[in-house]
Amino acid sequence: MTSSALPPTLAISLPDWIGDVVPWDDAFPTDEARMDLAIALSRENIDRGTGGPFGACVFEQQSGRLVAVGVNSVQRHNNSTLHAEMVALMMAQHRLQHFTLHDESLPVHDLVTSCDPCAMCFGAVPWSGVRRVVSGATRDDAANLGFDEGPVFDQSYRYLEARGIEFHREVQRQAAVDVLERYRREGGAIY
Amino acid sequence: MTSSALPPTLAISLPDWIGDVVPWDDAFPTDEARMDLAIALSRENIDRGTGGPFGACVFEQQSGRLVAVGVNSVQRHNNSTLHAEMVALMMAQHRLQHFTLHDESLPVHDLVTSCDPCAMCFGAVPWSGVRRVVSGATRDDAANLGFDEGPVFDQSYRYLEARGIEFHREVQRQAAVDVLERYRREGGAIY
Repeated sequence: MTSSALPPTLAISLPDWIGDVVPWDDAFPTDEARMDLAIALSRENIDRGTGGPFGACVFEQQSGRLVAVGVNSVQRHNNSTLHAEMVALMMAQHRLQHFTLHDESLPVHDLVTSCDPCAMCFGAVPWSGVRRVVSGATRDDAANLGFDEGPVFDQSYRYLEARGIEFHREVQRQAAVDVLERYRREGGAIY
Repeated sequence: MTSSALPPTLAISLPDWIGDVVPWDDAFPTDEARMDLAIALSRENIDRGTGGPFGACVFEQQSGRLVAVGVNSVQRHNNSTLHAEMVALMMAQHRLQHFTLHDESLPVHDLVTSCDPCAMCFGAVPWSGVRRVVSGATRDDAANLGFDEGPVFDQSYRYLEARGIEFHREVQRQAAVDVLERYRREGGAIY
């Protein structure tokens, strides 16, 4: 391969169905309402055959305005970094044209994800600038499905909390687990 | 904003100068030779003003064939996930059209990075399929520059080692640190 053939440009997109199912202009007043959307995305992603059973959103914390969404896109894009949370964070930063969502010129942002973040997504949180992480299914729920979420420990949470990042876990947990169970029943790929 | 306006496609590319400085067809027989390239990328990235002082490469472990490179692209793309390691892993998977580099049909791959991976990049390692991580500057060297690498602990290393992933650290450390020091002297952005 010659140098002129490399490197390529990667194109990262959301599935076409996103435009049909995401109510961009709805009000999302509570963590529960915001989580409902993240879980709906996780469910649609398996029903439409576009990836693993995980969805995530970035919201403005105070207003509840929806800024960006993500779904697991690992297989669709042949890219192991494209977990739902990573896609949502990338899309939010792209929309706002900031490499951090924690900026004087911006409102405070939260990440809402259908499952506790894996070690990669957890480590992405402080760089992203979100100030709160709301999650549904737990690390153990993901492990029951066969996904190893990697080295996230109690002290990992304390490390980020000491830097002002808050966590609200097990929001709508059963609904999130229902999607994981459905994925398992239908024989979805575990990688 | 209407739903039809969203979501966008993100385009992730390497800087144009990559094609001029990466000797794709060279032999890279040793970890030291492979690290020299990762460090050269970190240096070029600051000299050309395209990002932070970090470079990374994916190599075939046995043959030493260069598969992909990455440089820190956070500011250039307004995307906090685009650390050098993440870009190199994405580009390697794109080139091979696999979402994991650990596959019976593929040779074994290593990640070579000019600095110990932060918590995000560390968490990305098991998903990526690389079987060994070679690093130059240490977490403390990055902290001295003002970068907080996040929740990576001794037990994080043990967690991945228990899953068969090896680490070779402090390879060409001083040369890697020299680039970090130069970045600091020149007043590079710390985020």
